[in-house]
Amino acid sequence: MACSASDLAPLLSTTVNSTGAATYLCSQFTSISNQLSDTSYAVNNTYLLFSAYLVFSMQLGFAMLCAGSVRAKNTMNIMLTNVLDAAAGGLSYYLFGYAFAFGSPSNGFIGRHFFGLSDFPYPQADYSFFLYQWAFAIAAAGITSGSIAERTQFVAYLIYSSFLTGFVYPVVSHWLWSGDGWANPAKSDNNLLFGSGAIDFAGSGVVHMVGGIAGLWGALIEGPRIGRFDHNGRSVALRGHSASLVVLGSFLLWFGWYGFNPGSFLTILKSYDGGAGGYYGQWSAVGRTAVTTTLAGSTAALTTLFGKRLLSGHWNVVDVCNGLLGGFAAITAGCSVVEPWAAIICGFVAAWVLIGCNKLADKLQYDDPLEAAQLHGGCGMWGLLFTGLFAKEAYVNEVYSNKPGRPYGLFMGGGGKLLAAQIIEILVILGWVSATMGPLFYGLHKLKLLRISAEDEMAGMDLTRHGGFAYAYDAEDDASGKPSFMMKKVQPSKNATPNGDSPAINV
Amino acid sequence: MACSASDLAPLLSTTVNSTGAATYLCSQFTSISNQLSDTSYAVNNTYLLFSAYLVFSMQLGFAMLCAGSVRAKNTMNIMLTNVLDAAAGGLSYYLFGYAFAFGSPSNGFIGRHFFGLSDFPYPQADYSFFLYQWAFAIAAAGITSGSIAERTQFVAYLIYSSFLTGFVYPVVSHWLWSGDGWANPAKSDNNLLFGSGAIDFAGSGVVHMVGGIAGLWGALIEGPRIGRFDHNGRSVALRGHSASLVVLGSFLLWFGWYGFNPGSFLTILKSYDGGAGGYYGQWSAVGRTAVTTTLAGSTAALTTLFGKRLLSGHWNVVDVCNGLLGGFAAITAGCSVVEPWAAIICGFVAAWVLIGCNKLADKLQYDDPLEAAQLHGGCGMWGLLFTGLFAKEAYVNEVYSNKPGRPYGLFMGGGGKLLAAQIIEILVILGWVSATMGPLFYGLHKLKLLRISAEDEMAGMDLTRHGGFAYAYDAEDDASGKPSFMMKKVQPSKNATPNGDSPAINV
Amino acid sequence: MACSASDLAPLLSTTVNSTGAATYLCSQFTSISNQLSDTSYAVNNTYLLFSAYLVFSMQLGFAMLCAGSVRAKNTMNIMLTNVLDAAAGGLSYYLFGYAFAFGSPSNGFIGRHFFGLSDFPYPQADYSFFLYQWAFAIAAAGITSGSIAERTQFVAYLIYSSFLTGFVYPVVSHWLWSGDGWANPAKSDNNLLFGSGAIDFAGSGVVHMVGGIAGLWGALIEGPRIGRFDHNGRSVALRGHSASLVVLGSFLLWFGWYGFNPGSFLTILKSYDGGAGGYYGQWSAVGRTAVTTTLAGSTAALTTLFGKRLLSGHWNVVDVCNGLLGGFAAITAGCSVVEPWAAIICGFVAAWVLIGCNKLADKLQYDDPLEAAQLHGGCGMWGLLFTGLFAKEAYVNEVYSNKPGRPYGLFMGGGGKLLAAQIIEILVILGWVSATMGPLFYGLHKLKLLRISAEDEMAGMDLTRHGGFAYAYDAEDDASGKPSFMMKKVQPSKNATPNGDSPAINV
Repeated sequence: MACSASDLAPLLSTTVNSTGAATYLCSQFTSISNQLSDTSYAVNNTYLLFSAYLVFSMQLGFAMLCAGSVRAKNTMNIMLTNVLDAAAGGLSYYLFGYAFAFGSPSNGFIGRHFFGLSDFPYPQADYSFFLYQWAFAIAAAGITSGSIAERTQFVAYLIYSSFLTGFVYPVVSHWLWSGDGWANPAKSDNNLLFGSGAIDFAGSGVVHMVGGIAGLWGALIEGPRIGRFDHNGRSVALRGHSASLVVLGSFLLWFGWYGFNPGSFLTILKSYDGGAGGYYGQWSAVGRTAVTTTLAGSTAALTTLFGKRLLSGHWNVVDVCNGLLGGFAAITAGCSVVEPWAAIICGFVAAWVLIGCNKLADKLQYDDPLEAAQLHGGCGMWGLLFTGLFAKEAYVNEVYSNKPGRPYGLFMGGGGKLLAAQIIEILVILGWVSATMGPLFYGLHKLKLLRISAEDEMAGMDLTRHGGFAYAYDAEDDASGKPSFMMKKVQPSKNATPNGDSPAINV
Repeated sequence: MACSASDLAPLLSTTVNSTGAATYLCSQFTSISNQLSDTSYAVNNTYLLFSAYLVFSMQLGFAMLCAGSVRAKNTMNIMLTNVLDAAAGGLSYYLFGYAFAFGSPSNGFIGRHFFGLSDFPYPQADYSFFLYQWAFAIAAAGITSGSIAERTQFVAYLIYSSFLTGFVYPVVSHWLWSGDGWANPAKSDNNLLFGSGAIDFAGSGVVHMVGGIAGLWGALIEGPRIGRFDHNGRSVALRGHSASLVVLGSFLLWFGWYGFNPGSFLTILKSYDGGAGGYYGQWSAVGRTAVTTTLAGSTAALTTLFGKRLLSGHWNVVDVCNGLLGGFAAITAGCSVVEPWAAIICGFVAAWVLIGCNKLADKLQYDDPLEAAQLHGGCGMWGLLFTGLFAKEAYVNEVYSNKPGRPYGLFMGGGGKLLAAQIIEILVILGWVSATMGPLFYGLHKLKLLRISAEDEMAGMDLTRHGGFAYAYDAEDDASGKPSFMMKKVQPSKNATPNGDSPAINV
Repeated sequence: MACSASDLAPLLSTTVNSTGAATYLCSQFTSISNQLSDTSYAVNNTYLLFSAYLVFSMQLGFAMLCAGSVRAKNTMNIMLTNVLDAAAGGLSYYLFGYAFAFGSPSNGFIGRHFFGLSDFPYPQADYSFFLYQWAFAIAAAGITSGSIAERTQFVAYLIYSSFLTGFVYPVVSHWLWSGDGWANPAKSDNNLLFGSGAIDFAGSGVVHMVGGIAGLWGALIEGPRIGRFDHNGRSVALRGHSASLVVLGSFLLWFGWYGFNPGSFLTILKSYDGGAGGYYGQWSAVGRTAVTTTLAGSTAALTTLFGKRLLSGHWNVVDVCNGLLGGFAAITAGCSVVEPWAAIICGFVAAWVLIGCNKLADKLQYDDPLEAAQLHGGCGMWGLLFTGLFAKEAYVNEVYSNKPGRPYGLFMGGGGKLLAAQIIEILVILGWVSATMGPLFYGLHKLKLLRISAEDEMAGMDLTRHGGFAYAYDAEDDASGKPSFMMKKVQPSKNATPNGDSPAINV
């Protein structure tokens, strides 16, 4: 694009060549318009790609959180499931998961295009969108593996995890987030559930409840770990083996949540004032979402700190981390449509929801090594309700601009329609996940494929199934051949693998 | 925006409708101008938000560095303070910290608007700016908690940390970085200290000195850890429990410093040639800042490697990591206004400043488990002086374009005014932090709220206050009830918490 | 830029001032054009800088992977090499590495401008490009240090690492990636090797093969660790000390690879349709590259999971992590020019290449603690061949648009010229690295500077050279002066450093 005054001047001269002048000028404008369009694609794809990378880093966060929360003897097992969630999820989401979730045009229940990324990209979605959605899909399976940690057969993991990531989760994400989805507040035909649709912006329900409820059924069906409740039914804490890994994982999840919540806008370059060039636009809403996320998690962490201090007498960092994550899981649904002060309420209640769910779990002798069902299921549910109560009119209309004048939060004067839609989402997710994952876990249980043997559970899965113990901290030479007292204790796998079949480390 | 030649042509025809043509054309230009403005907001907010996320990741870095640098028995304690720095800081910075720091218009000492983010955002600041400044605020408190690690009551932490993040730090950041700040080189009324203002681009003084000096007073007042100096007053190293965590933390801090220093430009889309479209602009200065940061840290690490080899005979990775961080703390003030070769000088001297401060601390029997006062206080101070010596004329005028022809580095021919302003900043920060944090720590000390008991210190705070020991690496089942020799050693908390009150892990 | 209809209208009036009108309009267009140019610089530099930060985070990934893969007694040593790769690489790449690699105009073998970043930046390269290339350079040295871990003198490391990062690697990157490079498919004079040039988009050869082959020579010359093969020559696994660190490192590498591969486009704002403003452009190719990277790694991880299960009977997370990284190393060359389905083939074969190389290494009694030669050398080589077989015509022409109608993958109908160029790259890298690093390692060996003594190897290098053991997990007070059985075992360095010379932790 270059404007030449000497070319343009004759066109504008008294013997005006008006068509030539207009064509000349318009070609300039068209070129500018195209460049602005290119810029917009580049900015939005940069934004979405780096958000996707952040969401991916949550998988590392999950892996470290899970590893630290289980006993040392099952560390290799749980970390393997976290690596595989990402890897197997990559293949299955490519082959069919994305198609089930976003394969429009289709019906409200399930998508049916773009299997294996055929005919991809298209105007509505680029590769960055696929990557972003994949990073979400693998999070759900990660949640579930926490609930059933330390006692589940690896083959059962392979089965339920494929089913969850490849089918159960994509269907729910289709309902809420695809243009055809029956509960989507931005449904393309604007025929919205209760005239509103359910607002689950980044997935308190779609991701967290789905993962948590699936875990609930798995953990219920296979029962608590050996020793988790004593003969009188009293709770006995089975302490995780590394608080450092728990804190590392929690901070990484916090870091990654800035991709999860603000990233769910998918674009950042969008005017909210009809193109008037003002300072307030989608970039502001994105930033505000990062702020509400921060405040909800922070408040939940502090509430848990003092709440647990009162209840247990300790200042416990692991409890604080779980509270923090509960606050995040709760704000995820409404992060983009509530005021910062409301996020504080969200986090405060989330902390007590988690404490309450944990008390209840203890009463019912329900054992969930990561508190995953309580945290992601319980706080996720609260997050959906919270959104129905506190969503602000202006923000709802900016974020879901497809239909002006829509319902918003009950406590903000927006009536009960949004809240009703939120409740419907909760009930339908509860029903769908129970109807799919419940029978699956029950079938695995009946086929004796779900739970490991008591001997394996006592010895630890790493030793019996995964090639050895995860750690060897003694200073002795492994090859010395003189097993010491300590080595026997710390490396029970030594005799199990007297010589390796590869030069790789086998831990 | 769309240009239609058939619409435009008649307007330009011989019977010219000049007003119509001009209006038509100008509406096109206005639309373009607005789109360019939107794009600029989107690009700059994307840049600032992801920089903020990087700065936040430094909190994880601090947590891991601190955890690895203390003994295993105090790991839960120190990690809890790191999590709370972020969480409590989130609430307090939202409620009043940001208002104290950036609440313009106000006086030069403290701000007074935007409490609880009311009337937010405004043309000068969006949510991304709040998030970015919050991530800075929590860093200062993290530094201080390192100085007084392993011997400070948790309640004392809660008090000093709130006071530091909520008041002491925001006031200093107001002085240097808000439009009203009396020492700000970009002060909005251009009435600059010594006609220059103090250049503390990303906070060698505002963040590092503040945190370090606060820690100095805390550690001085409560004295060294038991056993840190022997009966003859000789230094006895109390080794941290995990060099892997130290290296992990140091690398994460390095990673996050790319948000801290280059991110402090706040925007990346800004021409330096008056809109002539050249390849050199603020994006170049941002990149150069990343390079000076890298070179200063790298040089300090190498200098420490060989320096400590000469002094102690070892090639020590933990010393190298501390040297690296000292180089970063030093370059932080001047990173944007010095040449890459000057950054090498900055890092070289910083390494010796740290070594010297550590020697001095040993002489004075000052105990700082993280070397925080030496590293952040000492190297931060050097960084402010360095900027007064080496700031380059062209860069100072680009970065602080509010007033042309301003003073720059003494060694670069820019006279002594900038250096004088830097020295004033050092003295005032020393005075302010001493006058606020000194009495606070002394008061806590007098009220017997500062230091834990000798019994607690020997046993470790995790066991006595935080619900148990951080690690359980043995392969035994925790619930077996048969304490072994190793378990007694490795899990002293076993008997302290025979049964938990929740299914959560309690480590 | 502002358009004023009242200013413009008189210019367009019947008594037309055509020169004035044209000048007025063109100055508007020029201003817009410059702003678009500024925006483009800002967007592309933001993209490249954050990609560089991601690539840098791989250095942390390497550090954790290496630490976890060696025995606890050598952890300090290997982590120090990883920190120094980054720090020393920072200085050497600034002083001369960048000049050797990208100092155009020059000859096809080595560059010769921009030593110490003089005359920098220039229109073709900004500081972000320097930072990005530095982050690549330090990766190569990291790979090599894995191969020779646990038995190499620290002084040998200092020598070979400087030589590799400062000379051997920059020369290879000049050949493939600089405008003058003899094998560069985007060579500025379009005089391409076989009319094609070798496509090594992000460095399967330039980075991974170089690091791997260098490691191969080092490990071959110094021989296996003591105890690695028994008296009958059978392989004995020397297990790394922490699978958690291995998984942490692998996930961080995965995370960072999103900077390594997609980031190698260097820019994201580039039209692929000649400025027609369509939705498909370089941003799509960038996203697709992230997807092919993900799919190759995922497939390799899954293939390794089941392959090793068949071969060894275990579900082994460490093997899966190595397989994953092998898939990444392989896709790195062709990530931008192949279809997602082809990436699956790439990963599948890479897993078997790694398994095969490991079998071969065992047969030949070759000991490589990180499998670095097998993984980076073997899979890197496969990646170059794969690109010659599967590169797609349309993508090759988009990514390397300098010369239309160029050769592409043999299996895609593009003839054998690209494959021939790829084979040449493999052979030349093999030759160059062998001819430079082989004699260097041999010389060090002859000078008795390469391998540590058998006593040091048994005791571990941390104790003898690096100031102490990396860990102290017991709950005893270090200063108690009562060495216990456990403390003797876990902290052999206690007596070696009875009192420290600084208040720093000495671990």
